[in-house]
Amino acid sequence: MSTQKPNNDALWGGRFSEATDAFVQEFTASVQFDQRMAGEDIRGSRAHARMLGVQGVLTADEVNQIDEGLKQIEAEIQAGEFEWSIAREDVHMNIEARLTDLIGDVGKKLHTGRSRNDQVATDIRLWLRSQIDAIKGQIQRLQSGILTLADEHADLIMPGFTHLQTAQPVTFGHHLLAWYEMLDRDYQRFDDAQSRMNRCPLGAAALAGTTFPIDRHFTARELGFDAPTRNSLDSVSDRDFAMEFLSAASITSIHLTRMSEELIIWASAQFNFIDLPDRFCTGSSIMPQKKNPDVPELVRGKSGRVVGHLMSLLMLMKSQPLAYNKDNQEDKEPLFDTVDTLMGCLMSFADMVPAIVPNADAMREATLKGFATATDLADYLVRKGLPFRDAHDVVGAAVGAGVANGRDLAEFSLAELQAFDARIEADVFDVLTLEGSVNARDHFGGTAPNQVRRQVAEARARLG
Amino acid sequence: MSTQKPNNDALWGGRFSEATDAFVQEFTASVQFDQRMAGEDIRGSRAHARMLGVQGVLTADEVNQIDEGLKQIEAEIQAGEFEWSIAREDVHMNIEARLTDLIGDVGKKLHTGRSRNDQVATDIRLWLRSQIDAIKGQIQRLQSGILTLADEHADLIMPGFTHLQTAQPVTFGHHLLAWYEMLDRDYQRFDDAQSRMNRCPLGAAALAGTTFPIDRHFTARELGFDAPTRNSLDSVSDRDFAMEFLSAASITSIHLTRMSEELIIWASAQFNFIDLPDRFCTGSSIMPQKKNPDVPELVRGKSGRVVGHLMSLLMLMKSQPLAYNKDNQEDKEPLFDTVDTLMGCLMSFADMVPAIVPNADAMREATLKGFATATDLADYLVRKGLPFRDAHDVVGAAVGAGVANGRDLAEFSLAELQAFDARIEADVFDVLTLEGSVNARDHFGGTAPNQVRRQVAEARARLG
Amino acid sequence: MSTQKPNNDALWGGRFSEATDAFVQEFTASVQFDQRMAGEDIRGSRAHARMLGVQGVLTADEVNQIDEGLKQIEAEIQAGEFEWSIAREDVHMNIEARLTDLIGDVGKKLHTGRSRNDQVATDIRLWLRSQIDAIKGQIQRLQSGILTLADEHADLIMPGFTHLQTAQPVTFGHHLLAWYEMLDRDYQRFDDAQSRMNRCPLGAAALAGTTFPIDRHFTARELGFDAPTRNSLDSVSDRDFAMEFLSAASITSIHLTRMSEELIIWASAQFNFIDLPDRFCTGSSIMPQKKNPDVPELVRGKSGRVVGHLMSLLMLMKSQPLAYNKDNQEDKEPLFDTVDTLMGCLMSFADMVPAIVPNADAMREATLKGFATATDLADYLVRKGLPFRDAHDVVGAAVGAGVANGRDLAEFSLAELQAFDARIEADVFDVLTLEGSVNARDHFGGTAPNQVRRQVAEARARLG
Amino acid sequence: MSTQKPNNDALWGGRFSEATDAFVQEFTASVQFDQRMAGEDIRGSRAHARMLGVQGVLTADEVNQIDEGLKQIEAEIQAGEFEWSIAREDVHMNIEARLTDLIGDVGKKLHTGRSRNDQVATDIRLWLRSQIDAIKGQIQRLQSGILTLADEHADLIMPGFTHLQTAQPVTFGHHLLAWYEMLDRDYQRFDDAQSRMNRCPLGAAALAGTTFPIDRHFTARELGFDAPTRNSLDSVSDRDFAMEFLSAASITSIHLTRMSEELIIWASAQFNFIDLPDRFCTGSSIMPQKKNPDVPELVRGKSGRVVGHLMSLLMLMKSQPLAYNKDNQEDKEPLFDTVDTLMGCLMSFADMVPAIVPNADAMREATLKGFATATDLADYLVRKGLPFRDAHDVVGAAVGAGVANGRDLAEFSLAELQAFDARIEADVFDVLTLEGSVNARDHFGGTAPNQVRRQVAEARARLG
Repeated sequence: MSTQKPNNDALWGGRFSEATDAFVQEFTASVQFDQRMAGEDIRGSRAHARMLGVQGVLTADEVNQIDEGLKQIEAEIQAGEFEWSIAREDVHMNIEARLTDLIGDVGKKLHTGRSRNDQVATDIRLWLRSQIDAIKGQIQRLQSGILTLADEHADLIMPGFTHLQTAQPVTFGHHLLAWYEMLDRDYQRFDDAQSRMNRCPLGAAALAGTTFPIDRHFTARELGFDAPTRNSLDSVSDRDFAMEFLSAASITSIHLTRMSEELIIWASAQFNFIDLPDRFCTGSSIMPQKKNPDVPELVRGKSGRVVGHLMSLLMLMKSQPLAYNKDNQEDKEPLFDTVDTLMGCLMSFADMVPAIVPNADAMREATLKGFATATDLADYLVRKGLPFRDAHDVVGAAVGAGVANGRDLAEFSLAELQAFDARIEADVFDVLTLEGSVNARDHFGGTAPNQVRRQVAEARARLG
Repeated sequence: MSTQKPNNDALWGGRFSEATDAFVQEFTASVQFDQRMAGEDIRGSRAHARMLGVQGVLTADEVNQIDEGLKQIEAEIQAGEFEWSIAREDVHMNIEARLTDLIGDVGKKLHTGRSRNDQVATDIRLWLRSQIDAIKGQIQRLQSGILTLADEHADLIMPGFTHLQTAQPVTFGHHLLAWYEMLDRDYQRFDDAQSRMNRCPLGAAALAGTTFPIDRHFTARELGFDAPTRNSLDSVSDRDFAMEFLSAASITSIHLTRMSEELIIWASAQFNFIDLPDRFCTGSSIMPQKKNPDVPELVRGKSGRVVGHLMSLLMLMKSQPLAYNKDNQEDKEPLFDTVDTLMGCLMSFADMVPAIVPNADAMREATLKGFATATDLADYLVRKGLPFRDAHDVVGAAVGAGVANGRDLAEFSLAELQAFDARIEADVFDVLTLEGSVNARDHFGGTAPNQVRRQVAEARARLG
Repeated sequence: MSTQKPNNDALWGGRFSEATDAFVQEFTASVQFDQRMAGEDIRGSRAHARMLGVQGVLTADEVNQIDEGLKQIEAEIQAGEFEWSIAREDVHMNIEARLTDLIGDVGKKLHTGRSRNDQVATDIRLWLRSQIDAIKGQIQRLQSGILTLADEHADLIMPGFTHLQTAQPVTFGHHLLAWYEMLDRDYQRFDDAQSRMNRCPLGAAALAGTTFPIDRHFTARELGFDAPTRNSLDSVSDRDFAMEFLSAASITSIHLTRMSEELIIWASAQFNFIDLPDRFCTGSSIMPQKKNPDVPELVRGKSGRVVGHLMSLLMLMKSQPLAYNKDNQEDKEPLFDTVDTLMGCLMSFADMVPAIVPNADAMREATLKGFATATDLADYLVRKGLPFRDAHDVVGAAVGAGVANGRDLAEFSLAELQAFDARIEADVFDVLTLEGSVNARDHFGGTAPNQVRRQVAEARARLG
Repeated sequence: MSTQKPNNDALWGGRFSEATDAFVQEFTASVQFDQRMAGEDIRGSRAHARMLGVQGVLTADEVNQIDEGLKQIEAEIQAGEFEWSIAREDVHMNIEARLTDLIGDVGKKLHTGRSRNDQVATDIRLWLRSQIDAIKGQIQRLQSGILTLADEHADLIMPGFTHLQTAQPVTFGHHLLAWYEMLDRDYQRFDDAQSRMNRCPLGAAALAGTTFPIDRHFTARELGFDAPTRNSLDSVSDRDFAMEFLSAASITSIHLTRMSEELIIWASAQFNFIDLPDRFCTGSSIMPQKKNPDVPELVRGKSGRVVGHLMSLLMLMKSQPLAYNKDNQEDKEPLFDTVDTLMGCLMSFADMVPAIVPNADAMREATLKGFATATDLADYLVRKGLPFRDAHDVVGAAVGAGVANGRDLAEFSLAELQAFDARIEADVFDVLTLEGSVNARDHFGGTAPNQVRRQVAEARARLG
């Protein structure tokens, strides 16, 4: 850890009499990660320069030079030829310094009427706004795959579980639609977050606005924002968009753990409800027979990462006085990693889900075993006049006998069933079949195949 | 920990051959806390019974008996005369069993076509929906208090801080409006969460829907929901409304820590920017001179509680397979405590904020000391033709000299200033005044007093 | 929310000119929950008074009066006759004020040389220290139950899973010992936390110590602490003991979720590996056949609560300047609830685990199906001279054929096996049996029954 | 996302009929980050090979070839010449495959008697164990710097704060020693975590142990572990060491936020208690006068990251059934980043703290203003015979008068003071001086300068 000579590259060096310690310089720099926003930084700078031109702060020629310079820098970055410098701290200073290298003193005018505080707030919003578009796209791709699978298996009967115990027969299509619904709310949450963040902080400058005659509505429009933000202090200190995005991402991640958990359990030899294509699985270095559901396991695990980032941001913002503090430099990496993680998870799932192969026989066999139609019998007794709570008791006794004898309700004879309640007649066997059970749940939101098909059709219409 | 006799009160006891262990019974019961939703539970049951009547599942007379019985139970609860029983597990079973006590066998028909799974999902949404109304009301009350204070102090100059270092002069009103903006987004997030949760799960029954000819749109309408939920499995397993609500509450709590932090720092003897009324402070058991800003400190501390509850819910839902699992019983207490905590914090702040007394002299004196108008000088030099980055360097040198001599920029003579840059003329002193500085930031979102007043007026119009 | 008359009960009221607002009074009071530490508060006060007596600050008679008064108060509290007052804020003020009611002016001398800041720090450590004893006791009870079950089933073969796919045969006893090991580390973490917190803060007073000639070693000894704390500011601001305790509790809770998850999966109809006694299960309000593993589900869910409390405390302490701040009042409820939650979970498990009934047939059948001895075949080939990585490939091909034909490795003929590698001889069938497989893993920590029995014996010796 | 040809590089490919999708391959690979453990992986492999040699599983020549091959690979990696391949998934497979490239079939024998599951568990423990050494070293370096500063300023008086309000005079040295104490517990927690994790999982193989005659005590010894782990399933599923390390790191991070918060507040113009050397500060892109305390701000912000990683790991492990699951691949990056983050923070602080320059005048002036000796007056009155609670009230009235008149207690005349209580005599002015106040707190742990020096001396002796 050596001490450097006073650093001429640090653009704010005038007041300082001592060089930044080299270790501290690296510790406090952000260019290692915030260069990811270079495209947005340039886009924002170009809009800012145009606005300064329109307002007469810069001449048309100056605007043009800046514009050309920034275009060249963008090309250098895209070509991988840009030399990022830790001594220049961050993406903003790197680009501005390079601009001055390229076009001379005019480059030094770009920062007129703005500050890094409003600049970074603008960059990160631009960046996140477009990432949310990508995330919404992947959610819809996954939803679309779910609908395809659900449509195909609208009649396929499987055990519906509560407490991981067989509860009632449901259709596989119906179960999949529950996943669709979760993702539907996820989509909407991202959409809401995206709308709420779509205000332009540019012009807030350091924290109080600027003395130059800027037009904040102009830059907001140019950059596709709905409006400028309403308060300059808030503009540079607000990180709500990050916290809200991470909340939405966390809930989505939790949803993915629930789907993953089901896939993993279903893919176990004991359930054997589904087969996952080999390409979503890996093997073992020691056990040659293994075919492990790696993708759902990894997606399940990655939830920790996303929720961890949410906690990180909440902790970061806690007790920060206004306006900008250096702490906020820590807001970017959690966002970057969350976007990457979530995109990876959604893409994997969108690829994998339509390729899931259900094992109809195993599903049916499992449904036949767990007294899944006990509720149907209770409902039957209610229709025969018994109050529900009494019907529940009668069926409880029948199930108890079934457990003791190793037989399901449908395997009892009529006489045996009548011993539990004399109201039972031959038509009881219709309600004890799996098809009878699922078809009977024929109301909005119920598991009956025609309800499933209706929901698929409506969902497809919504997806467009 | 003794083992009881088989328990006749447990309404699902038919299948079981062994009594619930007394400790386990208490460990797994929820009536200790879920009785808080008794009003919603009764409201939902009454709507359900009416629907069963309309659909012909119950007779008009049965519906009437149930309705009267439930009204009586509600009265008993309100009068504190209802006997809650842990043996009856939860609020639902307690009420249903009491209903049968009161009206006999007809009471046993109430549970026809529903399950505790959709019942509790309905109750908690009804409960939370109305709590969000209360929270939104308190947010608006606090916003209103902020606007009053901001309006009153639209001209009052204080240091605007970044990094807790004096940055530029701002007005106290402008600073307060930053708080308003935070709360405005908070309000909207609660509003969005409330809309998104306003779907009725009733009719999902255990997980698959029911065999009775229910009308889910009827009950949804009766209970003020926008629509019934679309998938029965999702309806009983979805806890998004809780996670989303806790996310919104966490972000609000973090905002409150930021305001609290500022109040605490401002109330320190060293800053001395504000005086908090005694009734929001307490003293010391040992130090007679102390006047501690207890309310903002406690509000700051209570953020941990709210964020902890969010983490709790995310952890709770992670890796849960569909549909309902007993784990979900744990969803209620975090919600209850978050509502109570947040309401307490918002009410305290709504009471306290309008009573804050700023110390104008201390604010002004502090602003005069920190080279707060250095940016104004740089902007001045830009207007005189210097590129911003060069102007920044010139002013940096002037500030360095000021620090060395213990003088602010406005305390230099014109000749001294001209030594840093010959472009400086006598008009420079206008831009170096505090009033000159804030008045110059006269654009949308800037700190100029007339911008502050404009924002106050527009915000008041929005609040209605 | 009405404003009261200036409150004579608030013991620090001298400096204040305005009454505490009634709502604020309740919002900032802690007696609603901190009365739980009344026993510790009295114990600490008695030790403090004795010390003041020994040091000559109080007379023997005064000490005696205080001691008698505190004993009476303790009796009142135990009898439920003590009147807790929110106007007196907290447990400390309630007890001190009552003491003065009882014994007059001498009561006002008790607070000599101390402050609520060191008093509450002492109380909470005394309380938590004894709670950790109780938790350690329950961990050992659960470990003891595990050892009993493991010993009984040291030979019982089940599939060992990785990725929830059958990996290799293990014994049920061996699997249970993995649980024992987790709990062993948990125990040690609580033990370390307990040791580290066992320093006495009494005498730190408000933050700087006191001007009275106190003997901090005396009170530390009297209260069973290892030593007094070394720095008075740290003593009143340190909440490490809470954060460390909650960390240990969180890790334990996570361990319990892993055990719970296994129990829930094993209890599913599809695995059917175990039967849980009825008393740890509950039924369904609608599905008469259900027997739900409520206790493990609830324990799994309660992890969220404990981890949430950890997050809460970390958030609470973040960015607090020294020494004491009102925020810290929020440290107690998370501790209280964590202790209650963890005790409930451990007690339930300690009751339930020894009552688990494994289904040996289902376990064996499952183990036979999943190519569990594939690694044994690879190891066999290595012993016949093939490098491991090549042996792995050979067995991979054999398993592929087995999957295609629906046969396990042991179901191939010798000739068929030799087609995969000519080195295979008749002795291969020994290594392909389940017993052969588990018995072969006969090294320290391996799954062989005699290793399991050895570990049980050693663990029992450690438990004492 | 294209589908590749079946991948010959994947060492477990035998069973698979379909190639891994390229995107999935990258999504599930870990070599991008786990190559950081290459040194540990090689060290573990060499110990494993030696053990196999001693046990007669490998010949001496084979061991030698493996050893030489691994040494060459290590050299290649250190020289940056090793070609890491995502197709080979992870650090283990990359190294093993390269070994076979180098030494042929003997390389394929290295994996005899082990699995990646125990291999990675060993690698990560080796890695973390040595990182904890580095962290402990930095903690001690920071503690040492604190002691130097504390010793130098053992007499320097500053206000001791509670609630950020002046409470009592303390010495700067005493305040700094509170920081020392926090770090002392941090050190011990890391030490405990390091001891607890120092068990060797090697030999657990996939989950059940191995059929080869391994000597687990040999490898444990070779690798510097205290003993082998006791249960093979636990060995490959346990991630306690990670959760415990992250807990210790989180608590340390929270401590650093508290110190940072104080530094930031003290460095404000309003407090002006300290000056931070320029090299730990940076400037502003727009405000030339700014000198921002970047290092403490950034350290404060980085707490979110560490606590987020802890939450991430707890979430990751929640509800994982035994033994190894792919989820666990996610355990490494949080550890890596936490180590880097914490090391950076500690190094910055260890550099910065000894360079802090306190402003004695400002500290003294602040202490004189806040009625800091009010408690001393109360104690004085107690010594004159007034019960403490009554003395507290008397002083409260005096402070009230002081606030009203803008005078501190020491600025009252004797007659004025006597008006509050006739017991007050001329000697009162001794206790009202700052020196009198701090010198009077002369007991173990008190703020008196000689107590501070004593603590410094003892702490230095402990640090060694």
